[in-house]
Amino acid sequence: MHAGGIITLTTDFGVRDSYVAQMKGTILSTALRVTIIDVTHAISRHSVIQAAFVIADIWRVYPDGTAHVVVVDPGVGTDRRPIALEVDGQYFVGPDNGLFSHILDAAEREGLSWRAVALTNADYWRARTVSPTFHGRDIFAPAAAHLVNGTHLSHLGDRLDDPERLVLPTYRVEAGAVRGEIIYVDSFGNCVTNIPAAVLPPPGTSGVVIACGALTTLPYVTTYGIAPEGAPLALIGSHGYLEIAVRRGNAANDFAFGSGTPVHVAGTEH
Amino acid sequence: MHAGGIITLTTDFGVRDSYVAQMKGTILSTALRVTIIDVTHAISRHSVIQAAFVIADIWRVYPDGTAHVVVVDPGVGTDRRPIALEVDGQYFVGPDNGLFSHILDAAEREGLSWRAVALTNADYWRARTVSPTFHGRDIFAPAAAHLVNGTHLSHLGDRLDDPERLVLPTYRVEAGAVRGEIIYVDSFGNCVTNIPAAVLPPPGTSGVVIACGALTTLPYVTTYGIAPEGAPLALIGSHGYLEIAVRRGNAANDFAFGSGTPVHVAGTEH
Amino acid sequence: MHAGGIITLTTDFGVRDSYVAQMKGTILSTALRVTIIDVTHAISRHSVIQAAFVIADIWRVYPDGTAHVVVVDPGVGTDRRPIALEVDGQYFVGPDNGLFSHILDAAEREGLSWRAVALTNADYWRARTVSPTFHGRDIFAPAAAHLVNGTHLSHLGDRLDDPERLVLPTYRVEAGAVRGEIIYVDSFGNCVTNIPAAVLPPPGTSGVVIACGALTTLPYVTTYGIAPEGAPLALIGSHGYLEIAVRRGNAANDFAFGSGTPVHVAGTEH
Repeated sequence: MHAGGIITLTTDFGVRDSYVAQMKGTILSTALRVTIIDVTHAISRHSVIQAAFVIADIWRVYPDGTAHVVVVDPGVGTDRRPIALEVDGQYFVGPDNGLFSHILDAAEREGLSWRAVALTNADYWRARTVSPTFHGRDIFAPAAAHLVNGTHLSHLGDRLDDPERLVLPTYRVEAGAVRGEIIYVDSFGNCVTNIPAAVLPPPGTSGVVIACGALTTLPYVTTYGIAPEGAPLALIGSHGYLEIAVRRGNAANDFAFGSGTPVHVAGTEH
Repeated sequence: MHAGGIITLTTDFGVRDSYVAQMKGTILSTALRVTIIDVTHAISRHSVIQAAFVIADIWRVYPDGTAHVVVVDPGVGTDRRPIALEVDGQYFVGPDNGLFSHILDAAEREGLSWRAVALTNADYWRARTVSPTFHGRDIFAPAAAHLVNGTHLSHLGDRLDDPERLVLPTYRVEAGAVRGEIIYVDSFGNCVTNIPAAVLPPPGTSGVVIACGALTTLPYVTTYGIAPEGAPLALIGSHGYLEIAVRRGNAANDFAFGSGTPVHVAGTEH
Repeated sequence: MHAGGIITLTTDFGVRDSYVAQMKGTILSTALRVTIIDVTHAISRHSVIQAAFVIADIWRVYPDGTAHVVVVDPGVGTDRRPIALEVDGQYFVGPDNGLFSHILDAAEREGLSWRAVALTNADYWRARTVSPTFHGRDIFAPAAAHLVNGTHLSHLGDRLDDPERLVLPTYRVEAGAVRGEIIYVDSFGNCVTNIPAAVLPPPGTSGVVIACGALTTLPYVTTYGIAPEGAPLALIGSHGYLEIAVRRGNAANDFAFGSGTPVHVAGTEH
């Protein structure tokens, strides 16, 4: 493990105020040599579902021992629990409101070990009295700093067997077809679906017919550059899912696509 | 102290241009192992008062020896002085235009030691000839790098006894009441007042009546989650001051609150 | 050289999605102790010319051995080549679409050594199979990490003698005059021209007459603070070029200036 360790931050705090810097100062006061990475602070306010997608998208790129702090926390100060998870050698810290649903799903699907605790041990908080409105600074940041310093997860609080899970939309594989939906729209307007590459034939396979919303015959290509400018297309995006895009355009805006827009792929069996 | 040290940056430069990266390159050319933290680069252009609030809000969270560079500098290239301060073991570097007013006030109120210098010693500038429009890169960044490297403050220039101070709005404690005003609106529309928690009874105390602008009876609660959605409320915010907010809403927009809006708390004595 | 090295990132990815964090995780998985600097992720989408200006503006401020990753890549997945350059002890990694034009021009003008390779060696990619839409994560980030780790440029791929170059607007020195144009507008509306300070007399020189667009007699001053508020002016900006600005205003908006607006300086010989 890195001598200093790595902590990533994903929040809906924006970058105008001092909130993120307060979290970082708290981390550095406990873990002086840690590398802090801003994943994003531009999660749509209170969008647990968006943050859950983003953290699921990045964690496997990071080295063992990394701690990921995710704070999208509409319930701060109520009885929702602050939690930490260890999944396959990485740590996740945040409110227990479903933020880590995709990660727990992946762990169970792939048989990865995981465990969770509620952050009940006040010895690892910033101070015995914490702000009821800023657990990011007072509970989550210190927990992550202690974890990268080598504190065992079990010291941070009581074991928890039932972290909150979002009810995530699932894709369905039918005879010769797959049904799914758009689950994330990126800032370019590219629309990521919940259909993984693994259940699709490779781009260019003949007989595959892809439909999204009102578009019924999207070309299924390997990359943006192959389509004419302004043309809609489908490809396997860098996230590893089927993605609907427009070359040099904005698919979400151009065709009014968004989270929940249905996607249908026919001709997947041969 | 950290082998590499920590330098924080607070500016109104935005994040689209190369200005911040030029400051960072200059810092790293002198202090190779420093950890650089972006507090924010989204201070409203030329808003010394906003930057003064933000830096006052974060410095105590950082470890001893941290250097804080703050560049909101409408007078760059005129005769306003570039300065550096040492306050209670931390450093502050920027133009002498009032940016460090809250910090000097706190130092004097709490009897903390402080001293200041004008950055007159060109040996510690980026080069003997500095850009008249970019002291952030050419004077402030190198000064901070030298300070975290261990250079004594007094080497950077001539002692200064009278740094500029903003005339900051003060709160008044009257018989059974406190008068203050909003001094900072965060990006969620939460309105931070200048009334510190220390002069108020705890949230929930009966008989306390809080008014802000046209709202005359704000509930005084511990956290957002307690109020109904869309309802205005008052609480002790994470900054340590009375704060006016709307649960899952934007108090500043919803009620046209802003810096200077008067706040009155009655029933504070019992 | 720094034990950990420095990698800078310049992209048009924005800061809302996970793309930048995926690049950083990839870098840290190979170069654990590197310092990563965000130059900007707010390059206008697909604006190679803007990114080329920004990277040219910052590289000399960074220490020897720094690797600069620039990803503005409308042709990702087509036959445009991924490349790396070494120029005067620093590294540049990105798509071969002209991003490094200013740097190659400077190298040739100043007689600096440079060499380039196409990133054809898959041993230095993130995995043997790369996403056709995200070379930033799968090819460029790993290449930069290997370079700061000490891998020799020639190991990354085949030598390349003809990196793409943009046709950049040039200035012309005529009898007693210089003609150029605006090439970059910063987020304050300051308009940077392509006329370098070296071909101009110093600010304040009598007889110099500066015209930009419809403004025919701009005062030629040393710094913003000298002009009245709202007044247009010309100065030598921190980039080292003649710049048109408005004190406490936005020159680009106020006078409809933009890239390509002609600038003329008369009276430059005496």
